[in-house]
Amino acid sequence: MVKVGIVGGTGYTGVELLRLLAQHPEVELAAITSRGEAGSAVADMFPSLRGRVALRFSDPGEAPLKDCNLVFFATPNGVAMKQAQELLDAGVRVIDLAADFRIKDVAVWEQWYGMPHAAPHLVAEAVYGLPELNRQQIRRARLVANPGCYPTATQLGFLPLVEAGCVDATNLVADAKSGVSGAGRKAETHILFAEASDNFKAYAVGGHRHLPEIRQGLSLVAGTQVGLTFVPHLTPMIRGIHATLYARVTREVDFQALFEERYAREPFVDVLPPKSHPDTRSVRAANTCRIAVHRPQDGGVLVVLSVIDNLVKGAAGQAVQNMNLMFGFDECLGLSQVPVLP
Amino acid sequence: MVKVGIVGGTGYTGVELLRLLAQHPEVELAAITSRGEAGSAVADMFPSLRGRVALRFSDPGEAPLKDCNLVFFATPNGVAMKQAQELLDAGVRVIDLAADFRIKDVAVWEQWYGMPHAAPHLVAEAVYGLPELNRQQIRRARLVANPGCYPTATQLGFLPLVEAGCVDATNLVADAKSGVSGAGRKAETHILFAEASDNFKAYAVGGHRHLPEIRQGLSLVAGTQVGLTFVPHLTPMIRGIHATLYARVTREVDFQALFEERYAREPFVDVLPPKSHPDTRSVRAANTCRIAVHRPQDGGVLVVLSVIDNLVKGAAGQAVQNMNLMFGFDECLGLSQVPVLP
Amino acid sequence: MVKVGIVGGTGYTGVELLRLLAQHPEVELAAITSRGEAGSAVADMFPSLRGRVALRFSDPGEAPLKDCNLVFFATPNGVAMKQAQELLDAGVRVIDLAADFRIKDVAVWEQWYGMPHAAPHLVAEAVYGLPELNRQQIRRARLVANPGCYPTATQLGFLPLVEAGCVDATNLVADAKSGVSGAGRKAETHILFAEASDNFKAYAVGGHRHLPEIRQGLSLVAGTQVGLTFVPHLTPMIRGIHATLYARVTREVDFQALFEERYAREPFVDVLPPKSHPDTRSVRAANTCRIAVHRPQDGGVLVVLSVIDNLVKGAAGQAVQNMNLMFGFDECLGLSQVPVLP
Amino acid sequence: MVKVGIVGGTGYTGVELLRLLAQHPEVELAAITSRGEAGSAVADMFPSLRGRVALRFSDPGEAPLKDCNLVFFATPNGVAMKQAQELLDAGVRVIDLAADFRIKDVAVWEQWYGMPHAAPHLVAEAVYGLPELNRQQIRRARLVANPGCYPTATQLGFLPLVEAGCVDATNLVADAKSGVSGAGRKAETHILFAEASDNFKAYAVGGHRHLPEIRQGLSLVAGTQVGLTFVPHLTPMIRGIHATLYARVTREVDFQALFEERYAREPFVDVLPPKSHPDTRSVRAANTCRIAVHRPQDGGVLVVLSVIDNLVKGAAGQAVQNMNLMFGFDECLGLSQVPVLP
Repeated sequence: MVKVGIVGGTGYTGVELLRLLAQHPEVELAAITSRGEAGSAVADMFPSLRGRVALRFSDPGEAPLKDCNLVFFATPNGVAMKQAQELLDAGVRVIDLAADFRIKDVAVWEQWYGMPHAAPHLVAEAVYGLPELNRQQIRRARLVANPGCYPTATQLGFLPLVEAGCVDATNLVADAKSGVSGAGRKAETHILFAEASDNFKAYAVGGHRHLPEIRQGLSLVAGTQVGLTFVPHLTPMIRGIHATLYARVTREVDFQALFEERYAREPFVDVLPPKSHPDTRSVRAANTCRIAVHRPQDGGVLVVLSVIDNLVKGAAGQAVQNMNLMFGFDECLGLSQVPVLP
Repeated sequence: MVKVGIVGGTGYTGVELLRLLAQHPEVELAAITSRGEAGSAVADMFPSLRGRVALRFSDPGEAPLKDCNLVFFATPNGVAMKQAQELLDAGVRVIDLAADFRIKDVAVWEQWYGMPHAAPHLVAEAVYGLPELNRQQIRRARLVANPGCYPTATQLGFLPLVEAGCVDATNLVADAKSGVSGAGRKAETHILFAEASDNFKAYAVGGHRHLPEIRQGLSLVAGTQVGLTFVPHLTPMIRGIHATLYARVTREVDFQALFEERYAREPFVDVLPPKSHPDTRSVRAANTCRIAVHRPQDGGVLVVLSVIDNLVKGAAGQAVQNMNLMFGFDECLGLSQVPVLP
Repeated sequence: MVKVGIVGGTGYTGVELLRLLAQHPEVELAAITSRGEAGSAVADMFPSLRGRVALRFSDPGEAPLKDCNLVFFATPNGVAMKQAQELLDAGVRVIDLAADFRIKDVAVWEQWYGMPHAAPHLVAEAVYGLPELNRQQIRRARLVANPGCYPTATQLGFLPLVEAGCVDATNLVADAKSGVSGAGRKAETHILFAEASDNFKAYAVGGHRHLPEIRQGLSLVAGTQVGLTFVPHLTPMIRGIHATLYARVTREVDFQALFEERYAREPFVDVLPPKSHPDTRSVRAANTCRIAVHRPQDGGVLVVLSVIDNLVKGAAGQAVQNMNLMFGFDECLGLSQVPVLP
Repeated sequence: MVKVGIVGGTGYTGVELLRLLAQHPEVELAAITSRGEAGSAVADMFPSLRGRVALRFSDPGEAPLKDCNLVFFATPNGVAMKQAQELLDAGVRVIDLAADFRIKDVAVWEQWYGMPHAAPHLVAEAVYGLPELNRQQIRRARLVANPGCYPTATQLGFLPLVEAGCVDATNLVADAKSGVSGAGRKAETHILFAEASDNFKAYAVGGHRHLPEIRQGLSLVAGTQVGLTFVPHLTPMIRGIHATLYARVTREVDFQALFEERYAREPFVDVLPPKSHPDTRSVRAANTCRIAVHRPQDGGVLVVLSVIDNLVKGAAGQAVQNMNLMFGFDECLGLSQVPVLP
């Protein structure tokens, strides 16, 4: 049994972590913190957890986090970087679901996140928690930077192509669509039901924080700086990311076979048969990424469709997958939920 | 292990049964039939089941249903009544998720369902599968009539009051709202996205087939014919039923305590604290009914709020619960999914 | 031409007023105020108004409201009662879309709205702006209290029955469902898309502020205090109210004819043929109330279905209708929008 | 007054035409046909039109279409091409909202639409009804091919760039998202609410019928064959198209100015200020296309965002705009609806 703490449990990644961890046979939930909700029962805020999670929120200063084997940070950006060192010093391993340790170039991080980094020395140590790329390092990691939702869907879709060097990596396009839960559980006007329902829009076309994260990941694989245009969109659904990826072919290979082979042993990546169009709902509430590869009219452009549940493979599920790796469990333990459809 | 067959697996109750049974540790899925889809893989129609359900649809005439221990009918009304006897004769137990065996008075059934009943003799034998009412009979039943979705939410909400005889049972009102999946997976215009989204309407106010079913259940408990006005509404959500129930108080009791005691040992009925308002999403994808009891302004009218997931506690989940009872498993086996929120 | 000002134009009733007034041939928009947005163009906040509304928000203290012929208050409760007198003194007529002048009994108002009333003397003068009830008084009014959304749908549905004295007015039930825009354009968690979508819930079952308003209106007509149970629900749609109304018959009349005659000359109330079930979308973006009358199984209970667009007949449209009456225009002027379906 | 007939009025473009024409001051609705609904009142099928459209559906064989000045075909593909000649011979002008006359190369049309063309001679005569491109020819046309919804949004977004020759027209990408009403009002499973809600997916990535239409339009302007990758997506909203367009810059110009100048005199194209992100709802129910131009990180790729209401500027509204041109009315007559937001 792993003794687990969660810092910041009132957002969507927090409640999703709780949903998954409550069903995990090797996890003992020891503490969940929230400054604002300290003292109140978690299940009072999230009635879906009634009878399943008996914990109360505790004050961050008083929670027995150092007694845990693992602490998840489900906090806004900028929190984990201030608290991780103390936990690591106490022998606690850490998975940060926010962005604090994702970007290796601290200057780039500070530019995109608009604050000085409080723990640059930990950035170097942190392992980027995409198991399909860094499985071995994750197993040994003390500190894991759990990937962003868009970066997970986008990198998994581009990886086989960039690794094989068969597309023009200087001119990739990622047109990504996210459900509204991706914006978090903050009281903001633009994500009200009456604003976001029956509506569709792009946002942050000028530059989204996930751009440098994706670029870093793909550039490492490519061995050279990739060129990427990344446009995120807000979609009137609760969960789900659909990344539509465009790349020009520079070398002919069997692209369907390329993807199938790359992911043949991956438990959470499902390459669909040719001509498929994955629904986001086909992975709803599950830790799966489904991918389809198209080459319209046998032309020069490949189109890859990659879908995940932003809260699961794009956040809490991937974090549990990383935990399983870090603690030597079966990678799929506690992650066998069948997607909820319809 | 129970060997299970499903007749009619292409609708929403069918795919939901598959979702639950695929996770059930004591079930071996032996066959699923569909005349129209015979030969094609279940997971091709429902990609959410890829990697989880390897079965292909088989032709109803060729499926090895008689080798099963249990067959679920997830068919339209009027199918199970023609096929149940043959299966029962072969020693197969049967759970019908449609309405064929729900109404004890065959004449009433024929009037509301508009067809002659093909197996009136089985109607008498069939046990109405509401475990909170008929747990012992279900354990021994060969043939279970799984309750309708509205009847489940409505009866669980009214039961404690009618049993205790503390409301005017001649004048009950059930104002019920259902998600669109309750209308099934039929290609009909009125349930198209562009018709049913951003819209709300009542339907069948003149008389809905679930009215006699609810009335039968409550009348049995009351020991007299109850008077019920039942108005269903189509709500722009996928899953969920919210029944808002109104009854006049005729005898003073502690109503909150009444409900809490009635359901104290029920694993799938959760009585909320006073002043609660259950969300349908608080039970999404789970086999739970949550209930809140209100007495506005301490007046003469009680308002009971009762929510379920129409596809789970209102259909496939309750069927699995009945299966667990029939085969002597822990009643909760395979039904421990935490609701998906958000 | 009427010179019109709007106080508080950043909410949904504000932008809906602008949509309607921008198309009104006898209106000159003179000013719209917002403390927070003073100086910015209205069309920057609401791009739907680009090219149609050239105004900028002005500071409440500096707006030329006293030069207007009419000022609409599209403000939170408690604002109009502090500012109306000054405008009336300047000869400006006032329509308050909030609740400040709706309840004649000031003590009741103060109890439900939780604040002392700043202008009790104006409450007596104010005319309750339901044209179907008070058309003549509205024509002459200086100060109109525009009805709430639930009260409009509910009163129009019950009015013919209560006027005719043919139902038990001591035991009415109004089960009402509202789209999320009814909660306003406030940054609050419970109306986020990811909270309110694919979900349904009752709220304020213990007592909603529209209860005393409805009760007042119906009691005046009944000539005695009516008994009403009112339960509002939050529905995952943007616009629309569906009131499902229940009443016991005490005197037999032709109920369909009763409704048809009552509303025969009403331009904005449409009584549907028998057995109809009005969709909320059938009035989307239009100033119409559609009503259907049912008597299930010819029993003792009448069920009336009443739908409006909460932002139009339930707020801004009714306010424009009142304006038309107050200034001697054709009552339908500027209100001829055909509902948007789908 | 123009006497207008509509062939095929039971789909979404049909009811939308009726919504707009019912408000048009120069239109007399003479006939609307439907084989299946002949004899029934239009307002019985679409209650939103009660009190506004008194017509009944008439049998196609009996409708007085030849007495009309103009007939709209709101039919499936393949109908207008069989009936247009007879109407033209009778002096009736024709606007086809389907695809029969959109593609000049009949062989290409037959390949994509899978049927032989019944009136190739009319294809040459037909004017492609995009007023922003062909205003003068539309004025004189007897037969107008109303553009598709995706082609309208996509061409308006790419036009200024292709006309100016400042992007690589051999490598354009159009990632387009449509509301579900774009799929029509057909009883098909994949567009049921419970399938399409809370879900997002691409479709027809291998090749969509609007691809040759867009390619034809842009190639004519470019003076050479353009290369276009076009991926449509199904979005869980009723109305709206959002086209996200990608093009590589080949020649530096002031792109914002380019768009503003190109559309300066266009009443229905609104170029937004720099850094804007148009919502589809900002044009809901209105005949407007809103466009924003971005150049992320001042790199080599332009991103153009183009939104329309697929049923208005993408279908019925554009058809009315074309009618206004053909009959010498103010181009905006009857098209002044303010978008419905929220």
